[in-house]
Amino acid sequence: MSRGSAAAEPARAAARAVSAARLQERLEAMAEIGATGRGGVNRQALTPEDVKARQLIVRWGLELGLEPFTDEIGNIFLRRAGTDAGSPPVLAGSHLDSQPTGGRFDGTYGVLAALEAVQALDALGIKTAAPLEVAAWTNEEGARFSPGCLGSKAFAAPGRLPALLAVKDLDGVSVADALIAARRAVPEARLRPLGIPVKAYVEAHIEQGPVLESKGKTIGVVTGIAGRRSFRVEIRGEEAHAGTTPPSRRRDALVSALRMIAGLERLMADPSETVRFTVGRLVVSPNAPSVVPGAVLFTVDFRHPEESVWRRLGEQIEAVCEANAGPCTVIVTEVSTTRPIAFTGIVRDTIEAVTEHLALSWMPILSGAGHDAENLALLCPTGMIFVPCERGISHNESENAAPADLTAGTQVLAGVLAELAGA
Amino acid sequence: MSRGSAAAEPARAAARAVSAARLQERLEAMAEIGATGRGGVNRQALTPEDVKARQLIVRWGLELGLEPFTDEIGNIFLRRAGTDAGSPPVLAGSHLDSQPTGGRFDGTYGVLAALEAVQALDALGIKTAAPLEVAAWTNEEGARFSPGCLGSKAFAAPGRLPALLAVKDLDGVSVADALIAARRAVPEARLRPLGIPVKAYVEAHIEQGPVLESKGKTIGVVTGIAGRRSFRVEIRGEEAHAGTTPPSRRRDALVSALRMIAGLERLMADPSETVRFTVGRLVVSPNAPSVVPGAVLFTVDFRHPEESVWRRLGEQIEAVCEANAGPCTVIVTEVSTTRPIAFTGIVRDTIEAVTEHLALSWMPILSGAGHDAENLALLCPTGMIFVPCERGISHNESENAAPADLTAGTQVLAGVLAELAGA
Repeated sequence: MSRGSAAAEPARAAARAVSAARLQERLEAMAEIGATGRGGVNRQALTPEDVKARQLIVRWGLELGLEPFTDEIGNIFLRRAGTDAGSPPVLAGSHLDSQPTGGRFDGTYGVLAALEAVQALDALGIKTAAPLEVAAWTNEEGARFSPGCLGSKAFAAPGRLPALLAVKDLDGVSVADALIAARRAVPEARLRPLGIPVKAYVEAHIEQGPVLESKGKTIGVVTGIAGRRSFRVEIRGEEAHAGTTPPSRRRDALVSALRMIAGLERLMADPSETVRFTVGRLVVSPNAPSVVPGAVLFTVDFRHPEESVWRRLGEQIEAVCEANAGPCTVIVTEVSTTRPIAFTGIVRDTIEAVTEHLALSWMPILSGAGHDAENLALLCPTGMIFVPCERGISHNESENAAPADLTAGTQVLAGVLAELAGA
Repeated sequence: MSRGSAAAEPARAAARAVSAARLQERLEAMAEIGATGRGGVNRQALTPEDVKARQLIVRWGLELGLEPFTDEIGNIFLRRAGTDAGSPPVLAGSHLDSQPTGGRFDGTYGVLAALEAVQALDALGIKTAAPLEVAAWTNEEGARFSPGCLGSKAFAAPGRLPALLAVKDLDGVSVADALIAARRAVPEARLRPLGIPVKAYVEAHIEQGPVLESKGKTIGVVTGIAGRRSFRVEIRGEEAHAGTTPPSRRRDALVSALRMIAGLERLMADPSETVRFTVGRLVVSPNAPSVVPGAVLFTVDFRHPEESVWRRLGEQIEAVCEANAGPCTVIVTEVSTTRPIAFTGIVRDTIEAVTEHLALSWMPILSGAGHDAENLALLCPTGMIFVPCERGISHNESENAAPADLTAGTQVLAGVLAELAGA
């Protein structure tokens, strides 16, 4: 779509029909399911709380005349028929599961914005050539079952289904077991295959970072998702008495860990702040004040949007750790890898154009967090719409977002769906 | 005593009468009480195992005709009368309690070496002017009840008795409660006051460090006990998403902790290796790989034998932490303090002279670990005799020491006691 094209009118109309009040009501109703009492939600994937959320979204879909589907990993789809019977659908959505002390917007917003966008088109009597589907992906957070984005992974790569169904939570319950109750709870949703053809995918989400707020922008047009690599670094030294062992006789695993982390900080130094480098976990053993540490484990999480940099930095982590091991030994293990995803083409262009039509302030923004969109991008043109969240706080019960921003994001989504599905 | 004095002969005789076999038999019998099955002992203070060890040492004392005493903190004394009825006793000993996974020599050796030294004098028919007492101090390790060296603390400062009796273990049992069974188990031991006059105190102990072994010396003449200061450093930052939060927006408590520790390493840098500086405990919160750490706690343990340095370095710790806090806040709390103790005068001189008379290889050595001797030094002339321990490993079930070294240390102790008590 070119900016200012004739096609802009349905997008603007769809945007105008979005109801801020309805969106807020649904967000509040959903936030009651698994409410923690401190403003957040604990609605981990395929728990009774998540199952209730699934029932509610299916009920809302049925009330709007949408046809519910599910698949073998428990993703939920609410389908609005298109005028072109042979066209693959345009999908929009996110996830309803949460972190154990999660916020009420992370994921849920993208699903409810999609539902509201569809209802806005209904209100205007706008038909689309391609079917539209509201999608709720299973276990995005990875809090109960690891890896995260499990539902969209299986959707994009059905060959991985058996392995993903076998994943167990800390109580030994498998995804396959947990899905039995979740499926039974929504008998209206017919089973259909994973990985059906998709025309395009759009995901609205709170930013989960501070950039939009600090720049005073309403909409973030997401340029891509940073590639991630995570490592486990295990250092072995030797326990010794803190009073009797001279420094030259020590094999202090914590001293070595600090040298390694300082070396990694130099490796990751980036004045442009594009690299994200975090040591989030560090465990000392035996962790006693008067004992020289005999072992340390720490994690490295680093992210970068450019594949060449993502590859080059990741390849140097082991060497930097070894070069700084001193008298200790070190084992570096890469525990997970996600390539960078760039959003280019029709979906990103349409998001940008609709945002311009609606005269909303916006900026291009990279997602440092992973999203289901990274899996959909492997299948079809994909894009994401970010809205600001208060102080960038997310994965936290105090997560918050301004109603006006949530409405603006939904308006953009409605316009984009109208465009992409051919209003 | 001057070297080569006429008084050297009783010392040499006493040393010759020490029985290596008897010492080993008693060490082995004691190691069976609380044996862990992996070569070590778990004989924490005032537990049933410690009580058994107390019964055994009292029985051995009675067999040698020694008179058992105890005091209000449960220290045990086995008294051999002197020819001068008015003289305060010379004490020698250490402790029988252990760490939860402790070794069989730490403490126990000093008590059994003293018992063997007394028996050697008996065998020769050597009388001393001053009485001799074998001492076993309560709760030196501080593993069950904190602080450590509790029995000798109360002995040296009886005014602290009520507070020390009120100390509780993790199960809420107080020292006072635990003492009831311990006292009942040795009814032969008469109660006497804390802090009686003492003529001199000598403690034999394994080094618990690698210096004697690496220098090939049999005896360490201890020059003093390093002063210790320990601190708790608590850092508050802010949890944030590892993917979405730019470095300049982070308040990463672990990054600040690493800056602080690097600053403390610079402060404590000492080519002479006299300073002992250890960060033994470091705890990260929430300690999740993809969350920027919101809080870190770490401990500082540092030791130095010179009061001026001990004071100056300790005073700078808070300032170094604050200077390196970056965007975080920090609270530094001093949690314990022990001044440096220097062993000078008659006891140290006598240890050195007897070691020379016996033609044993020796060196002066500083104790980086704390010992009951640090409290006795407040009351009377005090010194310590170190013997090598394998690879410097202690507070560990694999703690080990060569029988020949243990015997040599006992020979020195026997000679020193003969000298100090006036053979």
